[in-house]
Amino acid sequence: MASTDKPTDPEYNKGAPPPPPPSATVNCFVLDVTLRVLLFAAALTAVVVVVTSNQTKFIPQLGFIREAKFKHSPALVYFVVALSVAGLYSIITTLASLSIIWKPNLSTKFLLHFAFWDVLILGLVASATGTAGGVAYLGLKGNSHVGWVKICNNYDKFCQHLAGSLAVSLFASVVLVLLVWLSVYSLHGRIPK
Amino acid sequence: MASTDKPTDPEYNKGAPPPPPPSATVNCFVLDVTLRVLLFAAALTAVVVVVTSNQTKFIPQLGFIREAKFKHSPALVYFVVALSVAGLYSIITTLASLSIIWKPNLSTKFLLHFAFWDVLILGLVASATGTAGGVAYLGLKGNSHVGWVKICNNYDKFCQHLAGSLAVSLFASVVLVLLVWLSVYSLHGRIPK
Repeated sequence: MASTDKPTDPEYNKGAPPPPPPSATVNCFVLDVTLRVLLFAAALTAVVVVVTSNQTKFIPQLGFIREAKFKHSPALVYFVVALSVAGLYSIITTLASLSIIWKPNLSTKFLLHFAFWDVLILGLVASATGTAGGVAYLGLKGNSHVGWVKICNNYDKFCQHLAGSLAVSLFASVVLVLLVWLSVYSLHGRIPK
Repeated sequence: MASTDKPTDPEYNKGAPPPPPPSATVNCFVLDVTLRVLLFAAALTAVVVVVTSNQTKFIPQLGFIREAKFKHSPALVYFVVALSVAGLYSIITTLASLSIIWKPNLSTKFLLHFAFWDVLILGLVASATGTAGGVAYLGLKGNSHVGWVKICNNYDKFCQHLAGSLAVSLFASVVLVLLVWLSVYSLHGRIPK
């Protein structure tokens, strides 16, 4: 008993490491669930904002009405698909994380799986944000070297939606980084010193 | 002594968790160093291939000579910067990882830091691959809806370099995912069952 009561005892580290207190495990997973709910909200917002970005406008330079649709750009279609996958993933993992708050005995295994999958989804969301960002930047500035004209001077609503969606998906990437960090840090905290 | 000699002893798990055998730590870090050397090779290749992609050509449609340069596209400049950062990072972490092979006692702390930083660099490389990929796809296919013409029919060498570089940076992203997985798995393996 003496060794567990006195952590400074040199014998302490030779004994079995104390399991993380249940409150620490629950706190970790409460933060995990909060981040996953944020991820879901961000993914849903990003998808909805892009899908509702379509704009029809009369273009004076061309002399007729033209429509800007996200479906016209494969980059934006990839963005919507990737963020939808991230949204679905966040629902599944929020439920899994909630189950751990009620039954903390499987938490180590879940942390390992969360870290593995979160990294993959981070790669997906980061690349989709980059893809859509690169194309949105071309829409905003154009590229005179290859004769690609900017379109944001005509389609203001379309571009505002894109910019908002990109900001939200950047936030989703940050949330995914934090989720991986949380899993790694929690795993590290369970290793006896 | 008996408990450390007989891992099947039921008292074994109640005692101090055995530190990972030095050979296991060294094997983990040998794999880590190998992956980091691969990451360096991939980042260097991707940067060199893009930087040497410039092509000067007579364009019949325009009636004069024009140059395709990676510097003309902010997306490709971002790609080169991001992959250069990943290359530098891989040199520093290869040295850090090598130091662990010689002095394995700090390995747990290094695994934690590697996992934290690898995730950030993964986000950077994945987003850069997405950005350059989105713009390269526009160069290959164009976008008739907004009047962006394809350029790869004229600049074949430029586009071949871009495609090769994108493939290599996708490989770099996969290596970074494997590096995070390795760190997480190694940390998980040190938690007593």
